[in-house]
Amino acid sequence: MNTDILQFQSDYQEACHENILKRLTEEYRKPYPGYGSDSICEAAKEKIRKACHCPTAQVEFLVGGTQTNATVIDSFLPSYQGILCADSGHIAVHEAGAIELTRHKVLPLKGKDGKLSPKALEAFLSDFALDENKAHTVQPGMVYLSQPTEYGSLYSKAELTAISELCKKHQLLLFVDGARLAYALAAPENDLSLSDLAKLCDVFYIGGTKCGAMFGEAVVIPDAGRLPHFFTSIKQHGALLAKAWLLGLQFDELFRDELYLHIGEKANAYAREIKAALKDAGLPLFGDYPTNQVFFVISHEKMEQLKKQAQYAYMERYDENSSVIRFCTSWSTREEDVKKCCEIIRGL
Amino acid sequence: MNTDILQFQSDYQEACHENILKRLTEEYRKPYPGYGSDSICEAAKEKIRKACHCPTAQVEFLVGGTQTNATVIDSFLPSYQGILCADSGHIAVHEAGAIELTRHKVLPLKGKDGKLSPKALEAFLSDFALDENKAHTVQPGMVYLSQPTEYGSLYSKAELTAISELCKKHQLLLFVDGARLAYALAAPENDLSLSDLAKLCDVFYIGGTKCGAMFGEAVVIPDAGRLPHFFTSIKQHGALLAKAWLLGLQFDELFRDELYLHIGEKANAYAREIKAALKDAGLPLFGDYPTNQVFFVISHEKMEQLKKQAQYAYMERYDENSSVIRFCTSWSTREEDVKKCCEIIRGL
Amino acid sequence: MNTDILQFQSDYQEACHENILKRLTEEYRKPYPGYGSDSICEAAKEKIRKACHCPTAQVEFLVGGTQTNATVIDSFLPSYQGILCADSGHIAVHEAGAIELTRHKVLPLKGKDGKLSPKALEAFLSDFALDENKAHTVQPGMVYLSQPTEYGSLYSKAELTAISELCKKHQLLLFVDGARLAYALAAPENDLSLSDLAKLCDVFYIGGTKCGAMFGEAVVIPDAGRLPHFFTSIKQHGALLAKAWLLGLQFDELFRDELYLHIGEKANAYAREIKAALKDAGLPLFGDYPTNQVFFVISHEKMEQLKKQAQYAYMERYDENSSVIRFCTSWSTREEDVKKCCEIIRGL
Amino acid sequence: MNTDILQFQSDYQEACHENILKRLTEEYRKPYPGYGSDSICEAAKEKIRKACHCPTAQVEFLVGGTQTNATVIDSFLPSYQGILCADSGHIAVHEAGAIELTRHKVLPLKGKDGKLSPKALEAFLSDFALDENKAHTVQPGMVYLSQPTEYGSLYSKAELTAISELCKKHQLLLFVDGARLAYALAAPENDLSLSDLAKLCDVFYIGGTKCGAMFGEAVVIPDAGRLPHFFTSIKQHGALLAKAWLLGLQFDELFRDELYLHIGEKANAYAREIKAALKDAGLPLFGDYPTNQVFFVISHEKMEQLKKQAQYAYMERYDENSSVIRFCTSWSTREEDVKKCCEIIRGL
Repeated sequence: MNTDILQFQSDYQEACHENILKRLTEEYRKPYPGYGSDSICEAAKEKIRKACHCPTAQVEFLVGGTQTNATVIDSFLPSYQGILCADSGHIAVHEAGAIELTRHKVLPLKGKDGKLSPKALEAFLSDFALDENKAHTVQPGMVYLSQPTEYGSLYSKAELTAISELCKKHQLLLFVDGARLAYALAAPENDLSLSDLAKLCDVFYIGGTKCGAMFGEAVVIPDAGRLPHFFTSIKQHGALLAKAWLLGLQFDELFRDELYLHIGEKANAYAREIKAALKDAGLPLFGDYPTNQVFFVISHEKMEQLKKQAQYAYMERYDENSSVIRFCTSWSTREEDVKKCCEIIRGL
Repeated sequence: MNTDILQFQSDYQEACHENILKRLTEEYRKPYPGYGSDSICEAAKEKIRKACHCPTAQVEFLVGGTQTNATVIDSFLPSYQGILCADSGHIAVHEAGAIELTRHKVLPLKGKDGKLSPKALEAFLSDFALDENKAHTVQPGMVYLSQPTEYGSLYSKAELTAISELCKKHQLLLFVDGARLAYALAAPENDLSLSDLAKLCDVFYIGGTKCGAMFGEAVVIPDAGRLPHFFTSIKQHGALLAKAWLLGLQFDELFRDELYLHIGEKANAYAREIKAALKDAGLPLFGDYPTNQVFFVISHEKMEQLKKQAQYAYMERYDENSSVIRFCTSWSTREEDVKKCCEIIRGL
Repeated sequence: MNTDILQFQSDYQEACHENILKRLTEEYRKPYPGYGSDSICEAAKEKIRKACHCPTAQVEFLVGGTQTNATVIDSFLPSYQGILCADSGHIAVHEAGAIELTRHKVLPLKGKDGKLSPKALEAFLSDFALDENKAHTVQPGMVYLSQPTEYGSLYSKAELTAISELCKKHQLLLFVDGARLAYALAAPENDLSLSDLAKLCDVFYIGGTKCGAMFGEAVVIPDAGRLPHFFTSIKQHGALLAKAWLLGLQFDELFRDELYLHIGEKANAYAREIKAALKDAGLPLFGDYPTNQVFFVISHEKMEQLKKQAQYAYMERYDENSSVIRFCTSWSTREEDVKKCCEIIRGL
Repeated sequence: MNTDILQFQSDYQEACHENILKRLTEEYRKPYPGYGSDSICEAAKEKIRKACHCPTAQVEFLVGGTQTNATVIDSFLPSYQGILCADSGHIAVHEAGAIELTRHKVLPLKGKDGKLSPKALEAFLSDFALDENKAHTVQPGMVYLSQPTEYGSLYSKAELTAISELCKKHQLLLFVDGARLAYALAAPENDLSLSDLAKLCDVFYIGGTKCGAMFGEAVVIPDAGRLPHFFTSIKQHGALLAKAWLLGLQFDELFRDELYLHIGEKANAYAREIKAALKDAGLPLFGDYPTNQVFFVISHEKMEQLKKQAQYAYMERYDENSSVIRFCTSWSTREEDVKKCCEIIRGL
């Protein structure tokens, strides 16, 4: 890797927040029991329960996002039930069939701004209720959404409440993928707290991998006892870390002194700076959302020029001469790199 | 956890070897691309290929043992094929149905000393070949064994060669689970090298989690190209780490200057000391094998006494008054703790 | 069931063609060995091989359509591969997740007239080939199409040839679902013979259930030997009939004296008569295709009137005041019922 | 097939009882709605509910035994639960991994006379309850047994009651495979009625394929409502017959005038005659049980001689010079064939 090139292609490039390394340095040669039955995991779970104002919650630590999505969905749903999501949902697009590997059909609904609209959901559910052949089709069992979405947009409290009520009405479970949740929580535009998530969802997870941890996702089931054998199911899905105390350690640090609530702030601010530079350079945004992902349209000529100076993620063809690409900031982004990036953009 | 109690219950309690922490401290705030497409992974893979004298090998890093077993078996076998193993094999006993979750039947054969004997395997395969109803039963597709075994015993080069030849003759694949491979490689009694494994197996893995790493298992497929889509299959099984460079980093350190070949030496020596103490104390071994696990029979009265001073792993009831328990040493075991443990044993 | 009401809701209502009942009456108390190892199955397979001009074909008899689709797809594809089809494809819509139950993602492409267009397929495959993230997504492994389609339309020989060539170019398998194949073969507009199917497909099936048999679908794999353990896979999928000779018996009759090639003729002709009546009555067709299914738009008022005299299949809402419904003729439809049905239609 | 050879190799060789053919001849050209929503299915279900003295039961018709086992087990159990059975249980031995295909581990316990003993079951469940690592292993969720067993033996009412109580105590479901149930019900030694099964089991099935039908198994769930989406699950498992009325028709005939309760009587009597002949000929029985299967030991020399005159099923090697083989009588066995068979045996 050419380290002279600015790194803005994803939010999972650097290992971890310094507090985590510090704690690991202190603990790495102490023995802890395996599989999460240790004191650090317990402390971390307690911090998360408090942050969610949900003392009854069951909290479990898994390793990665795709793994967490597949394990949660398969643990909650019988196989004749499918999972509804926006057509841009991560489970519908970029998980190599991991959900289908657990035998569940992903049922994508046309989304807007990366979001599942309560209206589209209601339309689907009404149609389904009326379908005379519905016993011959996959039963919808759960709604999946991401906060923030894969496009960086946010559900408002009103939107999630509407979706939650629809789910209750139609006896569907609600699952929120919070792989990038720290960036939502740090956005001034956001009005959905951890406590709201605990009230509105049946299960959600708090992302670690993209939000300051080396790896790890914390699954929260507000109503503990819903899945009596969830631990065994995690094990069966190959998602149980032997040294689970390393997961506990990371979340214990992320939830110490509200670090998790603020760790995304700079990333969001830097994204705003980059958006301003793109505006100055006349490069149109492909959706303008308040978190750490910046999608924009660029001509292929300028893209070639940019490639020599800054790493981006390629998304899709826009038209014959241009494409959509993404810059991603993160908890680890450095101010000087943002400055350089903005200069480069303005110089295109 | 009462830290005054000696910790001998497992070999996955402390985080990692100091070289790994040191390297992580140097690298933790450098950006690396995701999913294993980074320079550290490449360097680590090259070191492993060299250690195996197998320049053509495909090497992939997964996170944990159960996950690796399930992903490898499911990637190599169609679902009508099952996997043969000793009845004490980890996949047959302690993986919560993770192999069955991938739809493969585990076919346990009666083992001896935790090992699958070439003779038992041959008998099964001959019977199967003659079975008139064999098209109505699960087809054996792969042989699984662990080196060292779940009991700590070792396959000799002659034994593995015999099994490998049987596999070739009957068109079965051979898969070796090396979750504790470092302890085998460090045993003076061992005559099976990494290079032998690469010659005799279709796929094997080099364990990290129990051998000095925080987590991680390195899958080696000597004949690269056998599974063109193995990467996608790993992803689909939820086994792809986003920051895979952390896996590369750990194996790069474990294979620097032959660390992996020696990291188990002390553990084996300490196990011998503990066995000597048990002998002195008149506590009979439950199998005497050259690696880091020590199984022995103890009366329930003495077990209660021991419990206050040293953590062990409970295995199974032996008879009305006694049980089999295990002490486990590891790369992280300290000499003074072994001394104390031996004193405690002798004092029972 | 009110037998005074005309029955046009589906093509699987009556048990079987009289030749099949006659043969069953002759054979029903003779003993035959199980699982297809009998002389009648062998004779039927030979007749099918001859009808397909494909002496090398492997022919296997399964019981039902959804079962056949799931078993064939799962037997040919590893789980990281998905199956492309038109968005109206039966596997995408009406099989209750049976394909996902075998862990394969169904990848629907926007169809036209119920058909997958070679152009849409080529566009998808070109995009996929260029996708930088393709290793993170489901790999397309097979193309599924129905002849005739779920709408009753037909692929021409030119269209299927184009699709077959695309499949070969991109190393995809081609699978044709012929649940209603007799109606295609009997249509004057059709130019795709059984022999063409055997040349162009990797696997297809000849439907019995909707084409004169009590049940049964004959899977044809032109290149026998492609799936050495297909029999065991059928068994594992619960799709092996103990008295498979009953399947053989039915196909032996359907392929005696070219019965199968002609059994759909009257059904197609009757469908044309019904379409003429609908035209006369001013009820617009919802697609006009040459086989035995007639879809049309009808006001809810007239639908209520119709309901008292003739059974139809309800398809979907068309607009506020009208819906799409289907009349289906079959090998068992009686002329006098068609006459009555046309009168009823004209009287609406 | 050489029809001069007596046919005693299995109980699924002839198509069906004459009443079924007669009824089919009457009905075969009448239209019935699909998927079991017809009047014949309803009548058959009602007859079965009455025969079981269980007016609340849900009854569903599936096609074959392996399919029924897999569909029932997978519909009732989450995947982390396995199924306990005797080691000779059909699901453990002869279903090509069909249960594992649905991701459930089969947990065989050492049986006696083909039966799971309440004692062995209790021992397993007690050990499991005490196992400190039980969260890392497959959870037992259901007990499977066959009545009669694969060896032809019978559970008594006392035995099944004991097993049922153990299941309730340990929160396991009880599932009885009645593929050959007619032969149990017709045995004078039997004291387990259909009504007892409905009281003691959570689900069982009444076999058609081996008991007079062309195909078909009737699943009975005494407490209807246990599985609200069982119909969709049947469809998803490829086990829904389009012309389900053909299943209804067969069971409607089998349960007319108690035919099913008596259809196995002659078969059992004929089996007794064969056993008497074997005794006379000095050929030792391999278990002596009161239903229609006769297992015995025969020297290879005599086996060769027998082979020319009567078809048997080969079971397994007994010793160097002899093997275990099986004669099977059925509802379709003819008296004159039994006479001839006995003569042949006595002449060996």
